[in-house]
Amino acid sequence: MKIPDFAAVRETYDLIRARVVRTPLLRSAELDKITGCRVWLKAEPMQVSGSFKYRGALSRLMRLSPAEKGAGVVAWSSGNHAQGVAAAAGDVGTNATIVMPADAPAIKIENTRRLGAKVVFYDRKTESREEIGNRLSKETGAVLVPSYDDYYVIAGQGTLGVELHEQLQERGESLDDLLVCCGGGGLVGGTSLAMRALSSTTAVYSVEPRGFDDHARSLAAGARIENAKDAASICDALLAPTPGELTWQINQRNLAGGLVVDDQAVRDAMCFAWRELKLVVEPGGAVALAAIMSHHKQFAGRRVGVVLSGGNVDAALFAAVIGNGR
Amino acid sequence: MKIPDFAAVRETYDLIRARVVRTPLLRSAELDKITGCRVWLKAEPMQVSGSFKYRGALSRLMRLSPAEKGAGVVAWSSGNHAQGVAAAAGDVGTNATIVMPADAPAIKIENTRRLGAKVVFYDRKTESREEIGNRLSKETGAVLVPSYDDYYVIAGQGTLGVELHEQLQERGESLDDLLVCCGGGGLVGGTSLAMRALSSTTAVYSVEPRGFDDHARSLAAGARIENAKDAASICDALLAPTPGELTWQINQRNLAGGLVVDDQAVRDAMCFAWRELKLVVEPGGAVALAAIMSHHKQFAGRRVGVVLSGGNVDAALFAAVIGNGR
Repeated sequence: MKIPDFAAVRETYDLIRARVVRTPLLRSAELDKITGCRVWLKAEPMQVSGSFKYRGALSRLMRLSPAEKGAGVVAWSSGNHAQGVAAAAGDVGTNATIVMPADAPAIKIENTRRLGAKVVFYDRKTESREEIGNRLSKETGAVLVPSYDDYYVIAGQGTLGVELHEQLQERGESLDDLLVCCGGGGLVGGTSLAMRALSSTTAVYSVEPRGFDDHARSLAAGARIENAKDAASICDALLAPTPGELTWQINQRNLAGGLVVDDQAVRDAMCFAWRELKLVVEPGGAVALAAIMSHHKQFAGRRVGVVLSGGNVDAALFAAVIGNGR
Repeated sequence: MKIPDFAAVRETYDLIRARVVRTPLLRSAELDKITGCRVWLKAEPMQVSGSFKYRGALSRLMRLSPAEKGAGVVAWSSGNHAQGVAAAAGDVGTNATIVMPADAPAIKIENTRRLGAKVVFYDRKTESREEIGNRLSKETGAVLVPSYDDYYVIAGQGTLGVELHEQLQERGESLDDLLVCCGGGGLVGGTSLAMRALSSTTAVYSVEPRGFDDHARSLAAGARIENAKDAASICDALLAPTPGELTWQINQRNLAGGLVVDDQAVRDAMCFAWRELKLVVEPGGAVALAAIMSHHKQFAGRRVGVVLSGGNVDAALFAAVIGNGR
């Protein structure tokens, strides 16, 4: 499989920019004060489908042939990729079937259905979503849309980097560091392609929840490492077992390192976003903010970009987090 | 007392624009679908201090003389004006004392203090905040900063209209209607001055919670009418007893009418903003969204602007609203 380069990201941005939301780039005086950095926040919860995943899904689905559109698409996802694919399918005029874990956040299941996709459940402990997805694809001829290990999906996520760079340029600003959440590594990989080309002095870091820090450990070891099977985290969007095949080829070259945050730091970041930014951020979407809040000494005095990547969180969990906020 | 004209609003925008947040202008495909309108949402919860009130406060405080800055400012407010004045005081280098009801939302009291202001409480049932504020002003020489009936405060709130118009122009868009929340009438008044001058065919409506619909009834009657003393609403930011003296002079000329929403419509709007926009909106900040959601037939097929005016809401109330969401 081929990995995309910056030209692919650039071309994809031209292709999808009229349909994606140019999500706001925010500042917070309070965040600067508590971190000692100059922080820029990219508010991707405001993206279509509530997360950046729409970028990659739309990028892939806009490349479908008419015959492929007729057959539809199939994807597996715990939620955000599901919603992204469902929304993009509606946009390009095809139908989507999504294989989701039965214990995915209710809001993600509900939204996926509301966006017009068919949902097929599987049991995370006993069934293989890959097997179910591949079987559905074989039976119906539907095109598989991977959540990260795909040329066009990575190129689509990378459009966030192009857009961020444009917005910074408009303000006469640039970044020393950029912190991006990381599950399979598609967003941080795609974004690193853009930053490498457009702002080569910006150091790009992956951020992962503790227990799912496969990128951080793989970067340190110089080889792909898997997470322990019994790991658990509040960050339902970032539970990938190991760096992707394609994403790892990009990330091992492009990333400055991997940061790791614990669940309490994630809760604190969600509270901060709710109180100070008035923004709803889901656990997996808040890890980069959690990283700058808990690792700020490492970045003191620097200009740091933070990607808030999604906002699809169940009301009960969100209520519990803000109710116990510090 | 003199009322501001559009020239005053324009001049104020030039004065404060480097310090205010140019808050995002959002679209929602889902909102268009359920209303049958083309809706533009102005996300003022992302303003400094969490509401539009910072615009008016900063406008007034940037006109203080050096001697006045030395003496400080005093204001009364249930919360958003308090935070706006506190933030602006910090910005221009003066100190602020705020007279707040003892039963104001805890988050508003806490934020006002965190922004560096001194808070003096009063009992809403037995004491007069005007009396306390005037006494403090007399004792200390501090300048009173009214929450709406003030030339510079109204001109400051009106900068939202200039900014909104700029953002629409950049997108090649314009509005048939603009819905703005209304307590004392400063925001809708100031904004109407801007729209009158910049987009004279846009009809501007005030939106109020039921029981505090003094503007709607005054506009219908052609004279200022007071609300019943025993009225109650979830919208703590919009509990003014009657249109202001200055604001009424503007609003009776400029407004196309007054819309009224009930508390359940406000809760539904807060839920919608949390789920679809990923935005935290307080009850009083959600009335215009509630109006387009519940009065959409009146605006069918039209291009409608909706101001989301603030996001300072207690966690317990917000949790209850999203937990019971429809």
